[in-house]
Amino acid sequence: MADKAQIQEAIEVQGEEVLKLKSEKASKEQIDEEVSKLLQLKAQIGEDDGKHQFVLKTAKGTRDYNPKQMAIREKVFNTILGCFKRHGAETIDTPVFELKETLTGKYGEDSKLIYDLKDQGGELLSLRYDLTVPFARYLAMNKITNIKRYHIAKVYRRDNPAMTRGRYREFYQCDFDIAGQYDAMIPDAECLKIVYEILSELDIGDFRIKVNDRRILDGMFAVCDAVEGSEGERMVSEKGLSEEVADQIGEYVSLQGGMELAERLLQDQKMSQSKQACAGLTDIKLLFSYLQLFQVTDKVVFDLSLARGLDYYTGIIYEGFLTQTGIAAEAQNSSGAEESVSVGSVAGGGRYDGLVGMFDPKGRKVPCVGAEVMYKKNPKLLSQLQYCEDSGIPLVAILGEQELKDGVVKLRAADISRADLIAEIKRKTSEA
Amino acid sequence: MADKAQIQEAIEVQGEEVLKLKSEKASKEQIDEEVSKLLQLKAQIGEDDGKHQFVLKTAKGTRDYNPKQMAIREKVFNTILGCFKRHGAETIDTPVFELKETLTGKYGEDSKLIYDLKDQGGELLSLRYDLTVPFARYLAMNKITNIKRYHIAKVYRRDNPAMTRGRYREFYQCDFDIAGQYDAMIPDAECLKIVYEILSELDIGDFRIKVNDRRILDGMFAVCDAVEGSEGERMVSEKGLSEEVADQIGEYVSLQGGMELAERLLQDQKMSQSKQACAGLTDIKLLFSYLQLFQVTDKVVFDLSLARGLDYYTGIIYEGFLTQTGIAAEAQNSSGAEESVSVGSVAGGGRYDGLVGMFDPKGRKVPCVGAEVMYKKNPKLLSQLQYCEDSGIPLVAILGEQELKDGVVKLRAADISRADLIAEIKRKTSEA
Repeated sequence: MADKAQIQEAIEVQGEEVLKLKSEKASKEQIDEEVSKLLQLKAQIGEDDGKHQFVLKTAKGTRDYNPKQMAIREKVFNTILGCFKRHGAETIDTPVFELKETLTGKYGEDSKLIYDLKDQGGELLSLRYDLTVPFARYLAMNKITNIKRYHIAKVYRRDNPAMTRGRYREFYQCDFDIAGQYDAMIPDAECLKIVYEILSELDIGDFRIKVNDRRILDGMFAVCDAVEGSEGERMVSEKGLSEEVADQIGEYVSLQGGMELAERLLQDQKMSQSKQACAGLTDIKLLFSYLQLFQVTDKVVFDLSLARGLDYYTGIIYEGFLTQTGIAAEAQNSSGAEESVSVGSVAGGGRYDGLVGMFDPKGRKVPCVGAEVMYKKNPKLLSQLQYCEDSGIPLVAILGEQELKDGVVKLRAADISRADLIAEIKRKTSEA
Repeated sequence: MADKAQIQEAIEVQGEEVLKLKSEKASKEQIDEEVSKLLQLKAQIGEDDGKHQFVLKTAKGTRDYNPKQMAIREKVFNTILGCFKRHGAETIDTPVFELKETLTGKYGEDSKLIYDLKDQGGELLSLRYDLTVPFARYLAMNKITNIKRYHIAKVYRRDNPAMTRGRYREFYQCDFDIAGQYDAMIPDAECLKIVYEILSELDIGDFRIKVNDRRILDGMFAVCDAVEGSEGERMVSEKGLSEEVADQIGEYVSLQGGMELAERLLQDQKMSQSKQACAGLTDIKLLFSYLQLFQVTDKVVFDLSLARGLDYYTGIIYEGFLTQTGIAAEAQNSSGAEESVSVGSVAGGGRYDGLVGMFDPKGRKVPCVGAEVMYKKNPKLLSQLQYCEDSGIPLVAILGEQELKDGVVKLRAADISRADLIAEIKRKTSEA
């Protein structure tokens, strides 16, 4: 066998010959003959050839974005950003890698998909798998108990995704999360409203948002005798179940509906035996009452088949799906965001009340304070004013029943005529 | 020695005791006594303690950004973005990690600062060290020979930076690069103009932009007999130099000036012996003639002491410095961007004509075609029109000497009165 370097050189020479013939517009036959010789030489050097040549590619599961693709991304992100800002969120940023132990024990089975950095002497680091765990770490580290934040950034998963379906090992998540103690289901409803708004605005085809609750899933498995009580175990492979149990579960997970389905299941002889399931169903009922007020129930469906993989969810879970297949959409939005798990799924999230506590040495839950939009079922005027006081908002316009009757707008304490409103605001703000 | 878990428990109990005393506002003496016991317990368990507690921190050399810091970042980036777009650049994105071999041999000494990913079965990957090498890989891979692109993204260096000076292991670079064959020094001058514009707009204090040329450095070392001809070696430690040589080099690198300094050095008996140095000096002269036209020479200085660390520079190099110390600025802009190397340095770059060729199996240089702003010393009207034709630009307003005399604006071929210009453009664009 000839020396590799010699063959390499022969390949070079032969390659030049082919190019020369092409530039001289030689006959197809003549070119083909020389190309054939070139291929024979390449075959001689075998597959090792690639190691001598530079491999011009991006890492597996990643891609470049050219200017046109970037323009589309910018448009999509601007839509999402606009929605997040409209809902009063601030943004933070966290490093692309975390201490390995920060990510440990947060993702269950999916942990094997985490990219670790090489130990080069120093800390053990991993690339972030999502933006939620770093967010929880940020909250615990800075002792922040209340924030509405968005974060648009890349996350990393050593998955084997179907790239033709728009899934990659490096991809963006657009997260919107509300941390803090609120009246039940109000921030949850806002998150669903945001998914609804974004998927509508992006104009990527019709969609549905499926909603379920982890406690309903857990309760369902428990009452069907599918789980021996261990709370951590949620997913049970069907082969381990008796036919009767499997049938019962199959019946439940085929159910879809809205508030009325939650009501019905609360009366269900079996399901109602589980305190967990009842708590979840009660929340779903409440959630749908807010979703009705937000006028989004045309696209949101309570679906008992919805499960989400990540360990950290504790309550409501949801996922936005495109109903038409074949549309690649990269938008992702969530409270507790996570990658979609099936084709057409473009948004997802849920409630994760335990995660921040996992970062606190004493497992302390986050206490409650006001927020920019008041998450109160019946906001008392006084607490709204107190909130403005606390937040340094200098002016509050009040237009209640009495004010409407009197034809005035109440500006904080002083009543003024509607006509004077603008001038008064200008005066007040120039004072400030 | 007591069991570790027992000590851990004792630490917990003792910690609670201290907290209790503090909450009861006990005497300082009493609290100090209990704290002392706590410390003794912690000493017993030794340094291993940290492994049982959760370490709440970000990775070394990285940090979070809170909403206020993000607002500042957004403002800075918008200024930079605005400038890049004004200069007609498009944006691309590349993955945060590359095949390790893509980065190999591009950074010289600095290669040891590259973060490698752990071998988890698959490709060997590294986090990008800058945006320039991935850009060159992108150009070679997509056979792009001409592009003006910007890229604002994070890069990673296992450095031991002084974080108090605003330097981190994860930091943003804002790159602006012009690829393609142009008349000498015109894209180089535009890059310097961009640095000038951005540093002025950011309003972060007075600044200077130092300019040098790698060929002048190489030539200087050669004519001073400091290097035995090996082209790769640029930096020579002074201990290896004779006193005479060191003095001569010391004299050269103390020089600062503008076009007149380049002219003077071209006449310099010693320096003029080096073809390389002369080529560099001629380019510096030409560069300053463009910088005069751009009206930026008040801040740009030709400085023979400027050297830049990265291997891939081949010609002009430059760096923007804040003249006041203690100001932390994150702005980075460059053609061939690189991290700053001294305090106050906030921008840098240079010409790297060989880098794309390193990714091409045959080392082909990128050929030349037109661009959005014409990089021609004396742009011929015809080629401008041809460019518009090629680019699908429907309208060209021409206002030359003859047109001024006649009081008209030439709109492509048809002359129209100035007053009709707007209406005509509207008519033409509504046709399109």
